[in-house]
Amino acid sequence: MNNKLSWRDFKSAQKRRQFLENKLNISLDKVGEFNFTEEEITGRNIENLIGATQIPLGIAGPLAIKNLKLKIKNYYIALATTEGALVASISRGCKAVTQSGGANVYIESVGITRGPVFKLNNLAEAIKTKIWIEKNFKDLAKVAASTSSHLKLLKADYQVLGRNLFIRFYFDSADAMGMNMATIGTEQIVRLIEQNTTAKCISLAGNFDIDKKSAWLNFISGRGKKIWAEAIIPIKIVREILKTSPEKITEMVRLKNYLGSILAGSIGYNGHFANIISAIFIATGQDPAHIVEGSMGITTAEVLPSGDLYFSIYLPALVVGTVGGGTHLPTQQQALKVMQATNVLEYAQIIAAAVLAGELSLLASLAEGTLAKSHQKLARKGAKSA
Amino acid sequence: MNNKLSWRDFKSAQKRRQFLENKLNISLDKVGEFNFTEEEITGRNIENLIGATQIPLGIAGPLAIKNLKLKIKNYYIALATTEGALVASISRGCKAVTQSGGANVYIESVGITRGPVFKLNNLAEAIKTKIWIEKNFKDLAKVAASTSSHLKLLKADYQVLGRNLFIRFYFDSADAMGMNMATIGTEQIVRLIEQNTTAKCISLAGNFDIDKKSAWLNFISGRGKKIWAEAIIPIKIVREILKTSPEKITEMVRLKNYLGSILAGSIGYNGHFANIISAIFIATGQDPAHIVEGSMGITTAEVLPSGDLYFSIYLPALVVGTVGGGTHLPTQQQALKVMQATNVLEYAQIIAAAVLAGELSLLASLAEGTLAKSHQKLARKGAKSA
Amino acid sequence: MNNKLSWRDFKSAQKRRQFLENKLNISLDKVGEFNFTEEEITGRNIENLIGATQIPLGIAGPLAIKNLKLKIKNYYIALATTEGALVASISRGCKAVTQSGGANVYIESVGITRGPVFKLNNLAEAIKTKIWIEKNFKDLAKVAASTSSHLKLLKADYQVLGRNLFIRFYFDSADAMGMNMATIGTEQIVRLIEQNTTAKCISLAGNFDIDKKSAWLNFISGRGKKIWAEAIIPIKIVREILKTSPEKITEMVRLKNYLGSILAGSIGYNGHFANIISAIFIATGQDPAHIVEGSMGITTAEVLPSGDLYFSIYLPALVVGTVGGGTHLPTQQQALKVMQATNVLEYAQIIAAAVLAGELSLLASLAEGTLAKSHQKLARKGAKSA
Amino acid sequence: MNNKLSWRDFKSAQKRRQFLENKLNISLDKVGEFNFTEEEITGRNIENLIGATQIPLGIAGPLAIKNLKLKIKNYYIALATTEGALVASISRGCKAVTQSGGANVYIESVGITRGPVFKLNNLAEAIKTKIWIEKNFKDLAKVAASTSSHLKLLKADYQVLGRNLFIRFYFDSADAMGMNMATIGTEQIVRLIEQNTTAKCISLAGNFDIDKKSAWLNFISGRGKKIWAEAIIPIKIVREILKTSPEKITEMVRLKNYLGSILAGSIGYNGHFANIISAIFIATGQDPAHIVEGSMGITTAEVLPSGDLYFSIYLPALVVGTVGGGTHLPTQQQALKVMQATNVLEYAQIIAAAVLAGELSLLASLAEGTLAKSHQKLARKGAKSA
Repeated sequence: MNNKLSWRDFKSAQKRRQFLENKLNISLDKVGEFNFTEEEITGRNIENLIGATQIPLGIAGPLAIKNLKLKIKNYYIALATTEGALVASISRGCKAVTQSGGANVYIESVGITRGPVFKLNNLAEAIKTKIWIEKNFKDLAKVAASTSSHLKLLKADYQVLGRNLFIRFYFDSADAMGMNMATIGTEQIVRLIEQNTTAKCISLAGNFDIDKKSAWLNFISGRGKKIWAEAIIPIKIVREILKTSPEKITEMVRLKNYLGSILAGSIGYNGHFANIISAIFIATGQDPAHIVEGSMGITTAEVLPSGDLYFSIYLPALVVGTVGGGTHLPTQQQALKVMQATNVLEYAQIIAAAVLAGELSLLASLAEGTLAKSHQKLARKGAKSA
Repeated sequence: MNNKLSWRDFKSAQKRRQFLENKLNISLDKVGEFNFTEEEITGRNIENLIGATQIPLGIAGPLAIKNLKLKIKNYYIALATTEGALVASISRGCKAVTQSGGANVYIESVGITRGPVFKLNNLAEAIKTKIWIEKNFKDLAKVAASTSSHLKLLKADYQVLGRNLFIRFYFDSADAMGMNMATIGTEQIVRLIEQNTTAKCISLAGNFDIDKKSAWLNFISGRGKKIWAEAIIPIKIVREILKTSPEKITEMVRLKNYLGSILAGSIGYNGHFANIISAIFIATGQDPAHIVEGSMGITTAEVLPSGDLYFSIYLPALVVGTVGGGTHLPTQQQALKVMQATNVLEYAQIIAAAVLAGELSLLASLAEGTLAKSHQKLARKGAKSA
Repeated sequence: MNNKLSWRDFKSAQKRRQFLENKLNISLDKVGEFNFTEEEITGRNIENLIGATQIPLGIAGPLAIKNLKLKIKNYYIALATTEGALVASISRGCKAVTQSGGANVYIESVGITRGPVFKLNNLAEAIKTKIWIEKNFKDLAKVAASTSSHLKLLKADYQVLGRNLFIRFYFDSADAMGMNMATIGTEQIVRLIEQNTTAKCISLAGNFDIDKKSAWLNFISGRGKKIWAEAIIPIKIVREILKTSPEKITEMVRLKNYLGSILAGSIGYNGHFANIISAIFIATGQDPAHIVEGSMGITTAEVLPSGDLYFSIYLPALVVGTVGGGTHLPTQQQALKVMQATNVLEYAQIIAAAVLAGELSLLASLAEGTLAKSHQKLARKGAKSA
Repeated sequence: MNNKLSWRDFKSAQKRRQFLENKLNISLDKVGEFNFTEEEITGRNIENLIGATQIPLGIAGPLAIKNLKLKIKNYYIALATTEGALVASISRGCKAVTQSGGANVYIESVGITRGPVFKLNNLAEAIKTKIWIEKNFKDLAKVAASTSSHLKLLKADYQVLGRNLFIRFYFDSADAMGMNMATIGTEQIVRLIEQNTTAKCISLAGNFDIDKKSAWLNFISGRGKKIWAEAIIPIKIVREILKTSPEKITEMVRLKNYLGSILAGSIGYNGHFANIISAIFIATGQDPAHIVEGSMGITTAEVLPSGDLYFSIYLPALVVGTVGGGTHLPTQQQALKVMQATNVLEYAQIIAAAVLAGELSLLASLAEGTLAKSHQKLARKGAKSA
């Protein structure tokens, strides 16, 4: 293959497609159809553009949700996926939850984190640097705020190790996911620290942040938003809509979500949070690498004295935004409109409620042994249309 | 909101869009533009279709790769992303790796896993059931193979806990990711077990599989494919293309990827595998929920006696396919063609080499302190075009 | 302090005590009383001997145990501890289990592990070395067996990472804990590998063993012995001896052992295995550093349809021996005699049954809210006698 | 075996020994020799006493230590062990560290934790309960302080999960380890919470504490004391005393302590902290079950520009006391005197410095390949004296 031509030689997606089509003897007509402009996204969302990937977009809902402050409200959920049965399953869960009176949700905004690592001459200096930062925290916050009116430094965790100091700064980033903002703000903070201490920054991001990885620090301390959702599903609805019993769902949670996950050394104690998180993230322009920490979490289920089912989910580290990143793209923007969230907190709560609905529905399928049946139906469909 | 109309009342994406447009007073014209047919995907990839999400698609490479059997070959990498700077960074890594003589890759096919959980009357019965399965493993394999000519039962891990038996079946699923196939095959296996023992299956999937979660079992035993990639980057290339030194990259790996990750209780010891995995997965029709386990892994770096940089990455649990799932969709199919992989093993090795390139480039940026600068440039771009 | 005199200058415990008594102006008369001889232990169990530490030794039981092969048998448990209430609590558990017909135990001998790490020139050589070892495994086993008639190489796990090869050899070491034997055997194996491949051993023990650490590899693959114990406790006994109900114990296990442990990112899903393991280990001469992996494990509890309590524990990595190490010391030898185990497998099963009894009793105390009461009683005792 | 006689029938250790000697046809003369009185320990440290276990006690040091506030001081380390070579190895490490000018230590008192779990009617009530506790924290502290003049409630972590509230109270317990005190104090706190909210305590200890288990929460947030120790070992001392090079030790730490531990899914990133912790804990009367969390931690090593070795260790969760528990026993009391610590903070810092010394020495042995040699010597010794 001729390596002489580089991407820098082509200035448009069309030219790059032509180059690849010639070089690889393939057609790229389908990826060439898209409804954003190159100007809108080049250097902002992507480089070396050749076109667009299209992912089927479906809808679930209505899903009734109430949070601690708001009245009940019904939502539709936008889901981009290529995995058959997922949307149908979430829809069934939405029906069960909504007919049960809706999901209660509660949210805590922890903040996006960015975490530099510094090198010092010894342990004592590392500790002194930590103390200096604690004492001058307001100045650090000021310098961070000066980089963006949407950025507020909230707090920090510290970890000295040998002659290194690891920090985890938490930022409020308004309705944005905030990773870019936080990085720019942290750079200024780091400059201030280096000017006033003997610390030398080795990396703006020292993995004490910890970004796009499943990690106990994110599980324990949270990252982005922590969200809880619960519903009480009357036994009648469990039977008629979910085709199983509260006892079977409770036992499923114990065996699969707890004991199976424990035996696997998992950092997720749930059935399939990742499926629901992925589909909403892609539909609405979130960074899909944040599925990794966003899909961590725990399901709980109990049979209440009434015989009804208590069901809840907990997401410790949902990193999302409703402005910035991929949210401004035409199809993502319209999917966000479908969700009708007025800000990032409402949006995150809808995600949690959708996770509750989707999790409930999957566990019911497993309890009733219908998972393989739905896969078989899909396989036949696939065979037919393939 | 009027809940009376259900999705079942509408038979086409267009009608569903109209319903939502009226109900929510929004426009869905952009998601209405797509180049697959409803017939192709309905009931196979999605339900309740309303349209398509479009994600910018870029290109990196050429990237030179050699595996233990093949000669060196150059590849282009298809990347769907909305995160600015990612494609450019991977491109730079590809240049450094390719000019260094390419990446060596090595792959081990572990198999896709599906894992039922059974309930017995006591510990002794659970152990007897395990022994029965071990003795009759060939019959289990036969029954699994009868469900698909592409499915081969390879082996199983067992875990007795109390009066429960958790199993993890490993399957070869040819070029398919195989989760559906494995589920259907497992259902038949389960039937055979239930007919011959006192075991009662509680769930076809008991999380000892463990699917779409970061888990030590997947890290240690592998899932799908295990892949290694390495390159020796001459000091001259580290300086000229990556603008840093082998020493700085090695120290970055020690502080960020090891100590930072350890302090965060992470199950990933890398810089940003998830970014690269996400972009390729979405471009080529993989299940994005598999980013969770696929992005686990470890980076290593050493300064060789020659002063050059030894650099490697390891992915323990890459779950991918080149047929089935979302791979047949028009834009995903064309992106796969860009990657020029003749089968799933070659495809997986390209992913590993791309992860190597992308990881190298990010760590170099961090070592040189240019991460925030590129984010600032992006932020300005975003401001301008927003 | 005068550093001129070194330990090498003193040849007896008495002389060393005198030196310390003079130097530090303290009395060491109590540590000077012991009933082993210096000759027996010097250079075998300890160096720089100055005397002995005395730890109170108590007794629990009888505890009825049956394993899959043996008939029921009653055992006494030797417990060395300084933590008040522990022996009494285990005793109560023994009573409940024994009156319920005894504990069923099941054991699997996984083998002690030792794991060298090798450095190669590249990935390909690391893989070739692994293949060479697999092909010549019988020769490796022969060389290991030549170092001790009690040592059998059973199997190995391999992990290539970058240009390194990590190995985990599993050995049968008969009734000995086996760590020393395995180390000596591994050294000969390593020599053979180095003679026949390009591998260079960096460390005989590369932490892929992984010794005296809580680790998922030990949890998943086991180390030493894996043991399960279960009992069905009739509701009458739960009420009369344990003063609680099967429902409360089951709910305690769900909330404390599962959800509490999960929220804490624990690698143990139990109440207090470590207490029971510690007391038996110290009484009978085990290496107390093995409490770390030995105390990992999971408790399960269920209310059976009959209303009775199903209760079980699982220990994945119990590293013990009945010969060698500290087992030959006079008091440890007598404690082993109290346990009446004919070999290491029987001994390990008694430990598991004692853990079952002790865990059951603690969870019952917590369920009834009597934990603080017993601590208060102890505090008063302490105050009185202090 | 005759179960009719219970322990309650015997009032002295001597009578219990006689009972066992008759029943089991064994001699218990050796365990019958001890130098504490039954009155001192019965019902405080143990029940069902039959005697004492004797463990060989050795000595290492002098070890020079300086903390951030104090001048340099030399210490002797009391070590109870039955593992040959351990004391000699720690001694060598002490020599290397002391001749290098001593260890720098730094300590942070996190506090002992006790953590109840409550059940509420729903998520909203769980959150309200948390808010009530935060608002009334001073009253909680008052009630805790009323149970002991040594107990101070410092802070709390909260975790809502479903309709449960898990709390982790941190207490200062002066020179005592404090678990008993904290339990008694927590019981009063719980009473206050139950009187003022709808919360019902399910367990005083809900594993969010999390006691005697390796857990990420203890690793990240600390428990008891967090301690750091470091030393710079001149290249000459590395060569002459440790018989290796700074480069080899650094590479050993990278391969064994980091990569080997990571591949094993370990929660400890060190060589053998557990050995050193165990020997000191047993010698000085600590609760040996706390070895589990106490031995977690991380080693770091670097070759400095000068060619010297920078070496450090970090212990995140050392749970110790110098009064209470087993510390008052005669031999333990004298061992504490050997260590010459004026309070628990000084005592904990000596432990950390001893861990530094012992870790350094082991890694040096491994780097030089002398581990098996010392085991062989021990094996011969064992054979001879056995």
